[in-house]
Amino acid sequence: MKTLSVPQLDELAAEIRAFLIEKLSVTGGHLAPNLGVVELTLAMHYLFDSPKDKFIFDVGHQSYVHKILTGRKDQFDTLRKYKGLCGFVKRSESEHDVWEAGHSSTSLSAAMGMALARDLKGETNKVVAVIGDGSLTGGMALEALNHIGHEKKNLMVILNDNEMSIAPNVGALHHYLSKIRTDRHYQKAKEELNQFLNKIPAIGGKLAKTAERLKDSVKYLLVSGILFEQFGFNYFGPVDGHDMEQLLEVMEQASHVQGPVMIHVITTKGKGYSPAEADSHKWHGISPYKIESGQVLKAVGPPMYTEIFSDALIELAKKDERIVAVTPAMPGGSGLIKFGELFPGRMIDVGIAEQHAATLCAAMAMEGMKPVYAVYSTFLQRAYDQVVHDICRQNLNVIFAIDRAGFVGPDGETHHGVYDIAYLRHIPNMVLMMPKDENELRRMMKTAVDYNDGPIAVRYPRVNGVGVELEAEMRPIPIGKWETVREGDSSIIIAVGPMVQVAEEAAEQLKRDGQNVRVINARFIKPLDEAMLLQLAKDGLQIIVLEEGTELGGLGSAILEFYSKQGINGVPIRIIGVPDRFIEHGSIKEQRQETGLTAERVATELRALSAGFRQRVNGTA
Amino acid sequence: MKTLSVPQLDELAAEIRAFLIEKLSVTGGHLAPNLGVVELTLAMHYLFDSPKDKFIFDVGHQSYVHKILTGRKDQFDTLRKYKGLCGFVKRSESEHDVWEAGHSSTSLSAAMGMALARDLKGETNKVVAVIGDGSLTGGMALEALNHIGHEKKNLMVILNDNEMSIAPNVGALHHYLSKIRTDRHYQKAKEELNQFLNKIPAIGGKLAKTAERLKDSVKYLLVSGILFEQFGFNYFGPVDGHDMEQLLEVMEQASHVQGPVMIHVITTKGKGYSPAEADSHKWHGISPYKIESGQVLKAVGPPMYTEIFSDALIELAKKDERIVAVTPAMPGGSGLIKFGELFPGRMIDVGIAEQHAATLCAAMAMEGMKPVYAVYSTFLQRAYDQVVHDICRQNLNVIFAIDRAGFVGPDGETHHGVYDIAYLRHIPNMVLMMPKDENELRRMMKTAVDYNDGPIAVRYPRVNGVGVELEAEMRPIPIGKWETVREGDSSIIIAVGPMVQVAEEAAEQLKRDGQNVRVINARFIKPLDEAMLLQLAKDGLQIIVLEEGTELGGLGSAILEFYSKQGINGVPIRIIGVPDRFIEHGSIKEQRQETGLTAERVATELRALSAGFRQRVNGTA
Repeated sequence: MKTLSVPQLDELAAEIRAFLIEKLSVTGGHLAPNLGVVELTLAMHYLFDSPKDKFIFDVGHQSYVHKILTGRKDQFDTLRKYKGLCGFVKRSESEHDVWEAGHSSTSLSAAMGMALARDLKGETNKVVAVIGDGSLTGGMALEALNHIGHEKKNLMVILNDNEMSIAPNVGALHHYLSKIRTDRHYQKAKEELNQFLNKIPAIGGKLAKTAERLKDSVKYLLVSGILFEQFGFNYFGPVDGHDMEQLLEVMEQASHVQGPVMIHVITTKGKGYSPAEADSHKWHGISPYKIESGQVLKAVGPPMYTEIFSDALIELAKKDERIVAVTPAMPGGSGLIKFGELFPGRMIDVGIAEQHAATLCAAMAMEGMKPVYAVYSTFLQRAYDQVVHDICRQNLNVIFAIDRAGFVGPDGETHHGVYDIAYLRHIPNMVLMMPKDENELRRMMKTAVDYNDGPIAVRYPRVNGVGVELEAEMRPIPIGKWETVREGDSSIIIAVGPMVQVAEEAAEQLKRDGQNVRVINARFIKPLDEAMLLQLAKDGLQIIVLEEGTELGGLGSAILEFYSKQGINGVPIRIIGVPDRFIEHGSIKEQRQETGLTAERVATELRALSAGFRQRVNGTA
Repeated sequence: MKTLSVPQLDELAAEIRAFLIEKLSVTGGHLAPNLGVVELTLAMHYLFDSPKDKFIFDVGHQSYVHKILTGRKDQFDTLRKYKGLCGFVKRSESEHDVWEAGHSSTSLSAAMGMALARDLKGETNKVVAVIGDGSLTGGMALEALNHIGHEKKNLMVILNDNEMSIAPNVGALHHYLSKIRTDRHYQKAKEELNQFLNKIPAIGGKLAKTAERLKDSVKYLLVSGILFEQFGFNYFGPVDGHDMEQLLEVMEQASHVQGPVMIHVITTKGKGYSPAEADSHKWHGISPYKIESGQVLKAVGPPMYTEIFSDALIELAKKDERIVAVTPAMPGGSGLIKFGELFPGRMIDVGIAEQHAATLCAAMAMEGMKPVYAVYSTFLQRAYDQVVHDICRQNLNVIFAIDRAGFVGPDGETHHGVYDIAYLRHIPNMVLMMPKDENELRRMMKTAVDYNDGPIAVRYPRVNGVGVELEAEMRPIPIGKWETVREGDSSIIIAVGPMVQVAEEAAEQLKRDGQNVRVINARFIKPLDEAMLLQLAKDGLQIIVLEEGTELGGLGSAILEFYSKQGINGVPIRIIGVPDRFIEHGSIKEQRQETGLTAERVATELRALSAGFRQRVNGTA
């Protein structure tokens, strides 16, 4: 590839685009971001020497071209499928994948760490980070920017500026970048003037400082990236990210500069496929589609939990002016677009800034509002400290709408919402709920809005509802009250969220064996239904706790803790949850199968346990 | 106060300084930060109308002057003592305390939330945030800066620039601020020129854009805060924070500006007390001292765990060039000053940037280094996501040296290290240790350096060691192996860290009753010593698990989970840990007493439980 001419590289770029458009029409995937970085990725591989030189892709969803260029072209039929090609950078796939992500804004820290290690080891490889303008607003990326500018290590940051994170960008940095972009046509003239200025010799003596400042000042007129220069970077750009010749020239030039450089590359998300260019938000991550029409093939089924949440919130907000929705750059994914249209000023998109969003909610609650922090379970991890320190410690009425709880399917191990029970349950003052079906989600939203004693969270999965009828009135649920959804006296399954359905299926299977399994909907993970648990202990039956969250520190543990605290020993409890390892991409069904969160497994375990339990009971009777 | 003249305000400032120097010489506390903001706090109360206008102090340790001015002067004898005046902002103390913190960098998010709520409610109060230059580098503060600049709400940020967080500042922002400070003497001339420029009428037509740009450019020469202007703020400053007249003038002027304003105030930490001015790092938070000499009165005792860690790390780093220490702005508190002197380039202070620090470590580990992330337990909360997503998921050899684990005493509820067991234990690949004494800490440091299978953490408390002899050789401990420190056959205490000593004291007390209590040092919280646990179940004795961490999700839960998974029911386990609420400031001893983490409580519980247990055993025998 390194021997190709620019026209040949352009040709290769066109081939890659055609390949991606075709393959992803079948598998789905992150089409628009990858169409945007075809030339950029080619330029990186053309100029640098991977894997000696380290390529770090922020988030990593824009690494498809990199995968094609490093021997994985033939695996694209398996993209994001179980045991197939990962949708992100994956070290186990190739030595060219040197850093994994999934969450945004980690690439600058990673690049800095690799540069530090390189220098300590006395090596000389290059480190190149590719980060989008959206990811740059994440707090940790800004922390890294501040540190990189300070340490002056050799490393290259490529700012892939497409005016988008997933949703259109917000924030002062975004305005700043827009200003640069609109100034592009002045660029050529400025460069010439700059060259001229650089020929003026430095002035010595008393006037030097003022003269330097004047030069700086003119430079500001000339160089667009003054903000990044203030942060200690050598700024190059803006460069047209689809102009192969210009890209190669600027990147080559920048690669010889000492210290941190930032190359500001302007790209078009979805470049080369008109439906994706026209609506890059929609085409960020896309389901299978028809190439010619751009029509997306959608599975039919009951509405997703996200939609139910969206509609319920709108209903509630109509009657309660205190309700404000906050999202960290996910208005679409979190179902807040319509809310924002209906209630301008009450839908606040803070950009990729999960921490800020949490504390912003805390302060609004302090002033009597009812902020609803709509966030994916996996991204709320970023705000753990703010949840503890700002929200729960001050016991403020913040509502958490935690989407993508449980397995998430093709995005895989970086995106599962399987930790939130464990990382929220131990925080004082927190109430944590999960609905068994879409109607219960509506009831929980009402419960949350009615609740005035502190933070309250409802988590819901990335799946379709079960298809139940939605009651017109949203009836609140008493805090901490569980529900017996199926009576039975042979054994008990305590299940959370979608696992209630799995439990019922297991119960059906066991019915054929003549067993009557009781199924309990543990719709409150905290507080527990202590009265019911005391009764269960008296019933003396085998209990299985079924939850799509870590087996360590989850609801099962909460129940064990409760009995231990009550001094009740000997209640036979088996926890079936997500085992203590990371679970890779695939369908949610496959992920549940791999981890045993299935009716078959539950039925099998319960058969074995109940047999053992009966034996023990009979033995001691 | 609002009727005072400037000379009278200066006089009041001098009185407040004398008061603080005197009172803190007895109680200890955050002397230097508060001496730095005397005039600033006076100006705030002089110009604005608290509590209608909202004052938000970042971290909140610089709120002493505010407390004096809002009726709490007489309570300073109880500062930071149990049931006494809190060292931070505290809503329960006064209506003038509207926002609590303890961790840094939350104030801008809080201010923005309050401004949003105010506007939604149609109110008109002012919102004023005071943030130090150190806190400004925290990622969430930068996220907020970006959002504030975008939304253009009316709010005032006072940048309290004293060139310090706790340690001297690092980072590009710091250099930027230094540049402004050194330019201060140009300020007057610049202001005049600026006024002149503003009189030039705006140019219309084709030339307008270039002309505006030119004006902007000259403004850059004139206005120091161009970076903040780029972020969308109206910048005022720099202002001498000890010049009452200038402060009042600029703050008054700024208060009439629409949109977000930033006032850059230069202050001297420790102002007015020469020992504190000379070494503001040391005097940030200080123990009781002699006023005249500035001599600090230190308690004698065995070395603190922090010192033991420090020396052990140096010993290990001498033999292993891969070891690099990383701190988020806490080189002193974490015991890394000497390490940094001995190994220049191998002690990396990233500023207040816990997230970046974690991922930086991940990347260095990826490149074969052995990064040691030295961080307080409470601040590691900020990096929970990075620990999950970057370090544990990629299973990298990062060593966590988690200081201030357990209760921390006078800093209180925002600073306790009581969550880390619960928030780290459920993450796959994590190894988590805690030593019973200082020699074991050394052994654990060696264990961590020798370990090459992924992340490993050692947590240690903010107390003196127990005074044991330090073995010259640091012998590693087999991963997951517990230790029986006292044999016994009447009941069992499984204890973690300093609780091992408490358990031994309880065992001594029970010995007088004729009971032989076994004490086990659970030095690995993860993985558990499963072989020993299986044996304990066979022994059939009452077990107490004693840990200075949350009762929810801690070691006790881990043990319950293990037995549940093994299908072993009926082992009587009682967990004594930190209850599910926030514990206020006081001494560590008082905090342990309040929560029952004492030998007396353990002995009492064990007497009752053992009696009950024996009764049950006899009853069913």
